[in-house]
Amino acid sequence: MVPGHEIAGVVKAVGPDVKKFAVGDRVGVGCFVDSCGECEYCRSGEEQFCTKGVIQTYNCLDYDGHPTYGGYSQYIVVKEDFVVRIPDSLNLDAASPLLCAGITTYSPLKHWNAGPGKKIAVVGMGGLGHVAIQFAHAMGAEVTVLSRSLNKQEEALRFGADHYVATSDPAVFIELAGRFDLILNTVSANLDVDAYLSLLRVDGTLVNVGAPAEPDQYSVFSLIMGRRSIAGSLVGGIRETQEMLDFAAEHGIAPQIEVIGADQVDEAYERVLRSDVRYRFVIDISTL
Amino acid sequence: MVPGHEIAGVVKAVGPDVKKFAVGDRVGVGCFVDSCGECEYCRSGEEQFCTKGVIQTYNCLDYDGHPTYGGYSQYIVVKEDFVVRIPDSLNLDAASPLLCAGITTYSPLKHWNAGPGKKIAVVGMGGLGHVAIQFAHAMGAEVTVLSRSLNKQEEALRFGADHYVATSDPAVFIELAGRFDLILNTVSANLDVDAYLSLLRVDGTLVNVGAPAEPDQYSVFSLIMGRRSIAGSLVGGIRETQEMLDFAAEHGIAPQIEVIGADQVDEAYERVLRSDVRYRFVIDISTL
Repeated sequence: MVPGHEIAGVVKAVGPDVKKFAVGDRVGVGCFVDSCGECEYCRSGEEQFCTKGVIQTYNCLDYDGHPTYGGYSQYIVVKEDFVVRIPDSLNLDAASPLLCAGITTYSPLKHWNAGPGKKIAVVGMGGLGHVAIQFAHAMGAEVTVLSRSLNKQEEALRFGADHYVATSDPAVFIELAGRFDLILNTVSANLDVDAYLSLLRVDGTLVNVGAPAEPDQYSVFSLIMGRRSIAGSLVGGIRETQEMLDFAAEHGIAPQIEVIGADQVDEAYERVLRSDVRYRFVIDISTL
Repeated sequence: MVPGHEIAGVVKAVGPDVKKFAVGDRVGVGCFVDSCGECEYCRSGEEQFCTKGVIQTYNCLDYDGHPTYGGYSQYIVVKEDFVVRIPDSLNLDAASPLLCAGITTYSPLKHWNAGPGKKIAVVGMGGLGHVAIQFAHAMGAEVTVLSRSLNKQEEALRFGADHYVATSDPAVFIELAGRFDLILNTVSANLDVDAYLSLLRVDGTLVNVGAPAEPDQYSVFSLIMGRRSIAGSLVGGIRETQEMLDFAAEHGIAPQIEVIGADQVDEAYERVLRSDVRYRFVIDISTL
């Protein structure tokens, strides 16, 4: 198995029928590299929901039964329809996490209409959360970060957060009751779902983009008493991924990354387990 | 405590400033009898979400601290703004359950855009479910009833259901996977939430109007893999309740009821516990 999504690089060769890209183009590949192209979701540009099953970038079998190999590699061969263009103003290394962390947060913010007049909370400030803050802010929403501690407050404000709240203080859940239109949960641990639902306005939505291994629990009353919703969101389609990259370029949005060499991946993995990364490791594949 | 909501009757007297109703008018009172009138939700006609707290029709304290008494009574005094008009073509006895069961199902069907081209499932066929079928059908949606057994199939089809499925057969959840735009859950028992979520299309919603006492459980993956939502809905505002009654009159929609005298309430209660009612008891208050 060769892992690695969030792939950024330069086109080295194109097939004879390729129309969209030329040698030398700066491009990216995200979480998937093929889809059926015929189902209603593929036709509407939401290949992530392909009814035949989207082909993930690595550790997947393509429609012919061959394994897919990811981006921990000097080269990757991808159909042009699953390649996006990285705008000139984005560095390749900083752009790469946008191809999963970026679209994973951009897509639900757009889908649930983050924008002027909307109050958005971002739960967790890691690889996804720190990008979500930047997108929500650039879309014009009022952004509050809900994080366990105040450790990352200063950086959150620099990323565009309007408020930063430590959820280790239970009083927060009373003070902020009924406040948010949208809570984007980027954390993969089980939350006290009812407590977070209580922070939503009527018609508010708690959207999960992180998924814990164990089931979450909620009281139906928490939903009924404000016509609230719990939802989930899965990356975004290719068209929206390109839109997200263009939006990031236009608004100067970029993940904060630490570039490492191939010989540092074991150490980096240990640090990821300790949450000791601000906020994404990017491997310089030229060191392979 | 005097219980009783879903109240239908005739105006016997009006105060000097009452403008909307006159003696002799056929009227109804639903789940609440006052709200602050000033918050954003009251101003938008969704008094059920009043931030000061809506005053429930019975067993509640009004804003002056006085208890509210419900409809198991010959008379009730209600502010005109919390009274609705029962259209001439609806019988008072059959109209009364519309004032809670009706609006509880009509409101989410409208909110989540039930209509032509939409596939709606109604879980449970009791007091709420049998009205939900009629509304969803009249709105133009394709209606499937999901019930434990086939016992009520014939009546469901008469109420306008297009399909009726017994969920006691696990194969149903494979056969109907990804089928529905909206599932309206009228059952107050804990569901296998993940199983029901799997029946939803991308962007589909499982809306709960029944609430079990114990928490529900779900896997976040069930939401993420189709941008699905779990939601709840709480009756509707006064304006929408009037709209629902007018819609019911226009489409010949009425609950199927069994009218009982006051001396039958104990027996009726026992039968409710046994689910032995098709589909709502209505007490003839003249027998009190």
